[in-house]
Amino acid sequence: MSNVNVLTGPEVAAHSSRDSCWIIVHGKVYDVTDFLDEHPGGSKIILKYAGKDATEAYDPIHPPDAITTNLPVEKHLGAIDVSTVAKVVKEVTEEEKRRQALMEARPPLENVINLHDFEQVARIVLPEKAWAYYSSASDDEITIRENRLAYQRVWFRPRILRDVSSVDWSTTILGQKSSLPVYISATALGKLGHPDGELCLTRAAANHGVIQMIATLASCSFDDIVDAAGPGQNFFVQLYVNRDREITRKYVQHAEKRGVKGLFITVDAPQLGRREKDMRMKQVDDGAGAEVQKGHEVKKDQGVARAISSFIDPSLSWKDIPWFLSITKMPIILKGIATAEDAILAYEAGVQGIVLSNHGGRQLDTARSGLEVLIEVTAALRSRGYFPDPKFEIYVDGGVRRASDVLKALALGAKAVGVGRPFLYAFCSYGQAGVEKAIQIFRDEFEMNMRLLGARTLDELVPEMVDASALTNHVVLTPQDNLFQNTYQPLTSAQFKESKL
Amino acid sequence: MSNVNVLTGPEVAAHSSRDSCWIIVHGKVYDVTDFLDEHPGGSKIILKYAGKDATEAYDPIHPPDAITTNLPVEKHLGAIDVSTVAKVVKEVTEEEKRRQALMEARPPLENVINLHDFEQVARIVLPEKAWAYYSSASDDEITIRENRLAYQRVWFRPRILRDVSSVDWSTTILGQKSSLPVYISATALGKLGHPDGELCLTRAAANHGVIQMIATLASCSFDDIVDAAGPGQNFFVQLYVNRDREITRKYVQHAEKRGVKGLFITVDAPQLGRREKDMRMKQVDDGAGAEVQKGHEVKKDQGVARAISSFIDPSLSWKDIPWFLSITKMPIILKGIATAEDAILAYEAGVQGIVLSNHGGRQLDTARSGLEVLIEVTAALRSRGYFPDPKFEIYVDGGVRRASDVLKALALGAKAVGVGRPFLYAFCSYGQAGVEKAIQIFRDEFEMNMRLLGARTLDELVPEMVDASALTNHVVLTPQDNLFQNTYQPLTSAQFKESKL
Amino acid sequence: MSNVNVLTGPEVAAHSSRDSCWIIVHGKVYDVTDFLDEHPGGSKIILKYAGKDATEAYDPIHPPDAITTNLPVEKHLGAIDVSTVAKVVKEVTEEEKRRQALMEARPPLENVINLHDFEQVARIVLPEKAWAYYSSASDDEITIRENRLAYQRVWFRPRILRDVSSVDWSTTILGQKSSLPVYISATALGKLGHPDGELCLTRAAANHGVIQMIATLASCSFDDIVDAAGPGQNFFVQLYVNRDREITRKYVQHAEKRGVKGLFITVDAPQLGRREKDMRMKQVDDGAGAEVQKGHEVKKDQGVARAISSFIDPSLSWKDIPWFLSITKMPIILKGIATAEDAILAYEAGVQGIVLSNHGGRQLDTARSGLEVLIEVTAALRSRGYFPDPKFEIYVDGGVRRASDVLKALALGAKAVGVGRPFLYAFCSYGQAGVEKAIQIFRDEFEMNMRLLGARTLDELVPEMVDASALTNHVVLTPQDNLFQNTYQPLTSAQFKESKL
Amino acid sequence: MSNVNVLTGPEVAAHSSRDSCWIIVHGKVYDVTDFLDEHPGGSKIILKYAGKDATEAYDPIHPPDAITTNLPVEKHLGAIDVSTVAKVVKEVTEEEKRRQALMEARPPLENVINLHDFEQVARIVLPEKAWAYYSSASDDEITIRENRLAYQRVWFRPRILRDVSSVDWSTTILGQKSSLPVYISATALGKLGHPDGELCLTRAAANHGVIQMIATLASCSFDDIVDAAGPGQNFFVQLYVNRDREITRKYVQHAEKRGVKGLFITVDAPQLGRREKDMRMKQVDDGAGAEVQKGHEVKKDQGVARAISSFIDPSLSWKDIPWFLSITKMPIILKGIATAEDAILAYEAGVQGIVLSNHGGRQLDTARSGLEVLIEVTAALRSRGYFPDPKFEIYVDGGVRRASDVLKALALGAKAVGVGRPFLYAFCSYGQAGVEKAIQIFRDEFEMNMRLLGARTLDELVPEMVDASALTNHVVLTPQDNLFQNTYQPLTSAQFKESKL
Repeated sequence: MSNVNVLTGPEVAAHSSRDSCWIIVHGKVYDVTDFLDEHPGGSKIILKYAGKDATEAYDPIHPPDAITTNLPVEKHLGAIDVSTVAKVVKEVTEEEKRRQALMEARPPLENVINLHDFEQVARIVLPEKAWAYYSSASDDEITIRENRLAYQRVWFRPRILRDVSSVDWSTTILGQKSSLPVYISATALGKLGHPDGELCLTRAAANHGVIQMIATLASCSFDDIVDAAGPGQNFFVQLYVNRDREITRKYVQHAEKRGVKGLFITVDAPQLGRREKDMRMKQVDDGAGAEVQKGHEVKKDQGVARAISSFIDPSLSWKDIPWFLSITKMPIILKGIATAEDAILAYEAGVQGIVLSNHGGRQLDTARSGLEVLIEVTAALRSRGYFPDPKFEIYVDGGVRRASDVLKALALGAKAVGVGRPFLYAFCSYGQAGVEKAIQIFRDEFEMNMRLLGARTLDELVPEMVDASALTNHVVLTPQDNLFQNTYQPLTSAQFKESKL
Repeated sequence: MSNVNVLTGPEVAAHSSRDSCWIIVHGKVYDVTDFLDEHPGGSKIILKYAGKDATEAYDPIHPPDAITTNLPVEKHLGAIDVSTVAKVVKEVTEEEKRRQALMEARPPLENVINLHDFEQVARIVLPEKAWAYYSSASDDEITIRENRLAYQRVWFRPRILRDVSSVDWSTTILGQKSSLPVYISATALGKLGHPDGELCLTRAAANHGVIQMIATLASCSFDDIVDAAGPGQNFFVQLYVNRDREITRKYVQHAEKRGVKGLFITVDAPQLGRREKDMRMKQVDDGAGAEVQKGHEVKKDQGVARAISSFIDPSLSWKDIPWFLSITKMPIILKGIATAEDAILAYEAGVQGIVLSNHGGRQLDTARSGLEVLIEVTAALRSRGYFPDPKFEIYVDGGVRRASDVLKALALGAKAVGVGRPFLYAFCSYGQAGVEKAIQIFRDEFEMNMRLLGARTLDELVPEMVDASALTNHVVLTPQDNLFQNTYQPLTSAQFKESKL
Repeated sequence: MSNVNVLTGPEVAAHSSRDSCWIIVHGKVYDVTDFLDEHPGGSKIILKYAGKDATEAYDPIHPPDAITTNLPVEKHLGAIDVSTVAKVVKEVTEEEKRRQALMEARPPLENVINLHDFEQVARIVLPEKAWAYYSSASDDEITIRENRLAYQRVWFRPRILRDVSSVDWSTTILGQKSSLPVYISATALGKLGHPDGELCLTRAAANHGVIQMIATLASCSFDDIVDAAGPGQNFFVQLYVNRDREITRKYVQHAEKRGVKGLFITVDAPQLGRREKDMRMKQVDDGAGAEVQKGHEVKKDQGVARAISSFIDPSLSWKDIPWFLSITKMPIILKGIATAEDAILAYEAGVQGIVLSNHGGRQLDTARSGLEVLIEVTAALRSRGYFPDPKFEIYVDGGVRRASDVLKALALGAKAVGVGRPFLYAFCSYGQAGVEKAIQIFRDEFEMNMRLLGARTLDELVPEMVDASALTNHVVLTPQDNLFQNTYQPLTSAQFKESKL
Repeated sequence: MSNVNVLTGPEVAAHSSRDSCWIIVHGKVYDVTDFLDEHPGGSKIILKYAGKDATEAYDPIHPPDAITTNLPVEKHLGAIDVSTVAKVVKEVTEEEKRRQALMEARPPLENVINLHDFEQVARIVLPEKAWAYYSSASDDEITIRENRLAYQRVWFRPRILRDVSSVDWSTTILGQKSSLPVYISATALGKLGHPDGELCLTRAAANHGVIQMIATLASCSFDDIVDAAGPGQNFFVQLYVNRDREITRKYVQHAEKRGVKGLFITVDAPQLGRREKDMRMKQVDDGAGAEVQKGHEVKKDQGVARAISSFIDPSLSWKDIPWFLSITKMPIILKGIATAEDAILAYEAGVQGIVLSNHGGRQLDTARSGLEVLIEVTAALRSRGYFPDPKFEIYVDGGVRRASDVLKALALGAKAVGVGRPFLYAFCSYGQAGVEKAIQIFRDEFEMNMRLLGARTLDELVPEMVDASALTNHVVLTPQDNLFQNTYQPLTSAQFKESKL
């Protein structure tokens, strides 16, 4: 205690300007004066808390160790004497009251019967900013919707009269047991939607034998998540490669040391996409209303996503793969492959798998769905003798809302499927219990659909069980003949008497 | 009379708890204490009638003999002295009053001019629970709608200048005369929608020479239906195969003894589908509001369908077919074939026919329509010399609403078409008269369409009379460009003066 | 005058029952007692006028000579002394007042800028019964709309840098000059929509060098129409072949004698289609509210169309063609060909042309559009050396609303195009002036589109000027994923401040 | 000054009739009596200003020199003594007040985040007549919308793991540097939407190194635009070829003398299209309410477009190309090529490029999009060895709203893309700043999309980066089965309690 500097509220409060700016986070005092111009979210939002306790604003959108990692040690000024800090009496806003009423009016969890229900509930109960960040996708949001619609273009060819008394949908992913052919894919900033953030996922996954992929941009710190693991629980980790490779090396090796079973390197995000819902939300957000300093590249209208991503390295390339293979023994998976050409390169680069993904529609808009890419990838790999290969697994993510979707992807060659937003919406609306219910819904649906499909194990899912002939059939309607459509009078049914309806 | 135990109301009323639970059904007293946990619909609903007369609740969703079949003889306690049972003064609920008003406001039957009209009327006049049970289909209800839309993808190629003074749409099905190339397909729980249940179908079918398929899950007992037959009236029977094959054997052989002309074994329902409309309805139903006992597999949110189906055997397989062929001389038809592969297996298994069906969209969602499957099935059978074969008939069901639909299926190779819901909705809204009107509508439409198509008999329906090239064309739209669509200002027509419209 | 019997009102009024029923039509008295049961529209409607003057009800839906043609001479009782007939003071109904107000509020004719405008105006100002009769089509009205949409599936390939200073869209049809490659196709019962009926067409056609096809079921008599002809005006005649061929022979030979230039035999209507809009209208019509006598085949809910068509012969067949060729030297055209097979038969039967038509969507529903059939017909005829052949012309009708539509059909091989409803709606809303405006719109559109297409004469219209690859592309959407669609939140544009919009 | 006639207000006012009609424009007096019947917009609109100052009405829809060019010198009567002209006190109309309020309520420019936003703002703040003129397209406006939708039928195949630290989207167009692979395409009558008209484009283009194409029908005169150029700023010029070739020759040679770098000859407009939105607007416009003199070909309902275009020569043909090549050394580009056939002719005619365009959907409706034509054109040229050829550039215009659209066109072979309306709407809603923002949006989108696509320079855009297989896939839906659609009850999500939403 002797060599810990303890500061008082008034001392900190004296540094409340651009010239000298201290803030309190989690009981510690930091001098962020020099950092103001480097802050990805802009200096404005920090200056709002200059000389004050910023913890509450800091928490939802930063991992706990973000500040200690990014700020030189000499700027860590010491602890705060909490008793000396003026209490901020926080008013409950109308918006918060409304949200609270909505939370109380939620459908009982037992009434949630499919994954769409979670999204509908989340849309209503989430703070607008969180909904905008989570639900937004890039440009015209064509791809995010295509992800879902692609599954509707694949039809089942179910086989009958097979003894389906018992069906088994468990599998292994990268050699790890999984009770579902589904893993929880990485999503960022969970605390925007629930105070426990990604820990809701961790706890539910522990109870149900599901593997969670930890996001680089999780609200909870990597270690907090791993510390919360149940016995035998497995994790994967998602990686945004930092411009500073040393940071990345440490992160990867730490993950390996903590027992993470797979490293999913994001390769489709050299720059984060323009997500207009998120950008519009920023525009109406009070905190973003002020002017931006000249010379700053990150503008206030760029939304949460781009604010938090400026460290991602756009120079990442195939040349970096050997380095990754050299620093870890974890299986390496490239997340964001979108063509057969790159799938071949990935195989030949010696990684252990690929995720056919468009980042949930959040990156390049009008990119194709992972499911559609799967067809060209398996064909191309097969023609080179690279598929099937037990040492190279193919995953798909994006748009999955039903176990039947998963079965379609598996029939077409995927080993497992990543599910992100549905689990995120589940905990945003019902916490850990929501995630568990989501897993249970998957189980119920897997049981029914595998029976009806005539597949008793996942191995029995074969391409002949689906008709994917329409999958590459991208249809945009010719414009309507409005004059004709408006003039035509549609048929109606027989009328009830006296308009009693 | 001497060896019949006669009990009194107060005696029964004393057994009104989970520990000892007696109920009265149709004037008989039963001890259902041990059965509580086995009841597919859960114990809760039985306990509501513990010590009381349960007949009114029992009737619509059980065949009359369900209780005697499922309960051991020693639990049949005896008759009730009706005079000693306290009368329950039943209040007419607001809901019932509203329904009664709606029934009175129905369009006069003569104003019903197509089968859609029955559905529209039924949707309005049916109790919500019945509508939910009848109309629901599995998951996203893609397949139930695809069933209808598939017919719209087949276009006619009508031939002209043929003498069509007289046209004949009668046929034989499994060797039995039928005035229409249509049979009444099995639907369950008819009393939910009309007090006479499936007898409405029986009586109408008798008057018009149409064959009715009796459902395993009919509200009316098998014998009540057969007893109501008119002279020369023919039936088929639909079979859910029981886990207890002895029950099935008895049922089949009894049907044969009663003169049933065909055994339609349902092969697409090892487990009944998740039907979310039905499940949601259960959630708002009062009786389902209470907690469910632990360990019960059937949850309150599973709807009517799954509650009544737990006896269906998921182990049914091709190995069972020889046994069926050994226990009956009735023609055996497999109902629910969905691929060419299984059609070939069925032919080679020696059955007399198949129904290309997806169970009205109530089982595996995104399964293809029977009509689409028909094309691949006839091609595959033909290539093996199995088609055409007068000893192997192919039927299709699902989505038929017009005689023109039937003609399309027949042109493509079907022998007849099963129609379920339309007849069900006909009697739910107008009783027997509704079913007769539905048959008459078919007759009118067959006469007109065959004339306009240039086919004087069903034999003259040939594949060249349809253009089915679009049938396998599954189109899901690319997502709309909402920003563009919202910005575009549609054209309008010339404006009237002074907004007199 | 001596041998003309003159009757008085009271004398006629004494015969006002089913046992003795006299009516007055156009100043003549008829005994229709025996005819009551034969009246295609049912006896009820006649009995309403028993003993009275029926002229006003008779006129719009019968040719003037219908009664004298169908009733034996001995039932023509004589003339009426008009002064002795009690005047019926006709009340102006609310409906008529509303219509009158609507007529006054019509857009000025100069504001009508396309053919859709006429339809929109007609829809509003027509009596509901007339609109229902004109606009209705059979069953689900798929084909009537497909007729229009088919044109939207053909795209232009315009050629540039041709000297299009002058363009010429005149042509010949069956050797007769026509100022447009369009003829006025037959539509029935014009007086339902305008007191002058089809004469509006005749007078406008005279002024603009357009050929009118006279309908068998025109409200105006054949001779009235021909008598109204301008100098050099040409007609075609449309023929429903009567069960009594002698009537047909007289009609055809009379037409030839009056100078008609082409006989269009309708071959797609052995029975008139079920037109549900028309049928529903009948149901709400007062006059149809009463019971129908037993044994009557024509029911009150069959609409106007079927009531007037019972004389059409369903036995008409290819065998009759030589007879037609024997009784007239007029070119014979078969109207209603729908397949390549029948086009070949027609050519080989020696007729002078065919109309690829589905009767405006009023007969067999889900029949293909004439435009789509055109492609298969020209290909099949060409492969046999039958096309092109200056002695065998091919026309198309149905769905045309723009000169560009006509140009597409001509590029694909049609000689001319029939236009029915648009001219009908033009005179229903604006009388003769409306028809002239419609012709002028065609002229304006032909001039512009031929210039933009790079075709100076109709001969320069070649198949390469259109891309018809999508024409046979019949698309019905897969059902929507409603849960997904409802959950997705569409993008919006930047918001104006303070909701000033 | 001595030989300049100076007139007074009263002198001019004396000539205010059809017999003698003088008007004042920009301080000069003109005798337009003989010109009345030749005025493309009709005499009515001129007569409204007979004897008065017409400048304010004249300006937005004429180039400044239109009157001096079209009126013989002897009709130029002299200058006006401004002090003698009665001031017209102009009332601010309700419409103008409403517009002013809307302008004040515009979203702040920083909230505009995509090009659609400009269009949405323009739609609201523009005078109705301007919006109608700018936004309208021909006939059913199928092609204008198809232009946009075509881009949605091309999907990306992005490549990953390329070092995209720096990306470069600059290029050259006809040898001139351009900071974007986009040029500002010609649009007419800019002053209808902004008092500075096309100068807004010029000034913004100067600041950002973008090339502007000057329209023949610009509101600002050619010289005013060129005079406003910044240092090194480049222009193209768009040409409507005049019936009087001498006028055209002078115009072209003047443009060359002023340093214009390319001559874009419009070849798809021998006559301007019927644009019904524009025509309808004319109908409600006060000034157009009066009768038109007989014999006048240009009617009041033809909208702005046709009124201003009567000088365009419909006889322009391939034979004129050598003459153009002879009168200028500027590169010549044919704007409006729509088929491979004409692209080949253009190449062989020796011009330097073509624009695949349908004139923004304003000419031949149902013509295909430029993007679709691009595929057939590059294939046809390539098969003849004409492509690629650095001396023959291919451009595309129509429907572009995103940098991603541009990248798709470039991947398919275009050298650059023309963008018209989006820049027009940008300055109509925000003046020069709007255009600059539009350019900035393009830059942001190019940076992001090129990174995400894995293309560091425009040369790296290759056909394999797009999936254009659906581009020629023109889909018009089969008509809906309304009875079925209306009867089907869509699924809904779980309900919140007590309808708190």
